[in-house]
Amino acid sequence: MADPQSLELLKQALRRLPGVGPKSAQRMAFHLLERDREGAHIIVDALGQAISKVIRCNRCNNFSEQDLCQICGSKRRDPSLLCIVETPADLDSVEQAAVYHGMYFVLMGHLAPLDGIGPDELGIDRFTELLDNNPIKEVIMATNLTVEGEATADYLGDLVHSRNITVSRLARGVPVGGELEYMDQGTLTQAFDGRRPF
Amino acid sequence: MADPQSLELLKQALRRLPGVGPKSAQRMAFHLLERDREGAHIIVDALGQAISKVIRCNRCNNFSEQDLCQICGSKRRDPSLLCIVETPADLDSVEQAAVYHGMYFVLMGHLAPLDGIGPDELGIDRFTELLDNNPIKEVIMATNLTVEGEATADYLGDLVHSRNITVSRLARGVPVGGELEYMDQGTLTQAFDGRRPF
Repeated sequence: MADPQSLELLKQALRRLPGVGPKSAQRMAFHLLERDREGAHIIVDALGQAISKVIRCNRCNNFSEQDLCQICGSKRRDPSLLCIVETPADLDSVEQAAVYHGMYFVLMGHLAPLDGIGPDELGIDRFTELLDNNPIKEVIMATNLTVEGEATADYLGDLVHSRNITVSRLARGVPVGGELEYMDQGTLTQAFDGRRPF
Repeated sequence: MADPQSLELLKQALRRLPGVGPKSAQRMAFHLLERDREGAHIIVDALGQAISKVIRCNRCNNFSEQDLCQICGSKRRDPSLLCIVETPADLDSVEQAAVYHGMYFVLMGHLAPLDGIGPDELGIDRFTELLDNNPIKEVIMATNLTVEGEATADYLGDLVHSRNITVSRLARGVPVGGELEYMDQGTLTQAFDGRRPF
């Protein structure tokens, strides 16, 4: 290659980003060096800051800069409700919908035995500790409606049931704006089974 | 948003990368913080190094760590041949084809008057200086075969012609492996016009 060494190393480094292959990494490297050195400085600073500051909330397992995140530290949230989500992105979506005012637990993934992610890897012991030491009345399973998300919800649901705490699962059905013509059979079956008085 | 501030800043910073929108930036930030902190450190280091070390070659305008890049400083290259390319990526492609052993000039773009990129922005004065102070016998226009690349080649070609230096352009035609059924009319016209004895 005709490229200087530090450019070559930068391209390799950028490939650590998810979804970035050799061509994208090259485009990013050239763009930053050729047209946006200010942006490059901003990325270096922001990434350095995030690495040193972002830890996990002791209670909900979400990213946080303190031992207790903003939501877990808030007095406005209902401590008797606990919502289980797979990722911080899922938590953000629920928060943006502004439909829920309880606490969270973030799994940072889902059970995937084939990929070597079992209960231990998901930190389930922290989850059961949370259940045992807090006045929780209802646990809402808000894992994804995928195969892995359902399996994870089943597994966690059993742990909650055995503690005599109510468990609920997000409603399944046709999404808002959805057209029946394009819904799969599973969704339609769920939508009919779960139909409500109108 | 429920995210800590440094995470929010990291997401914004990653959007400076070309082709990265809010969802990708979030996925990258979560990935680095959750699964690849080592990768995050590597990116910080590599980007910091590249910013401080990578400059432009005084002669060919390509990225370099020295005033004169490896190619321009090499005694094995033919100084009477000059190949004009738009970007360092184009130069890499030509080098990988191992078909050319002369020198280069990298425009770092192409003429695009509508985007405010004229001869001054492309550093054409450095190009003419190069022509006037070196024993160049042939200039090969290897800009892209796009509208902008052709316009740039036309403009630069005139500058070279006026100095009584030979100018050539990459051959146009059907690419190796190409099927006639899928070639556009322009390519087929060029392929017939440029047909060779067989």
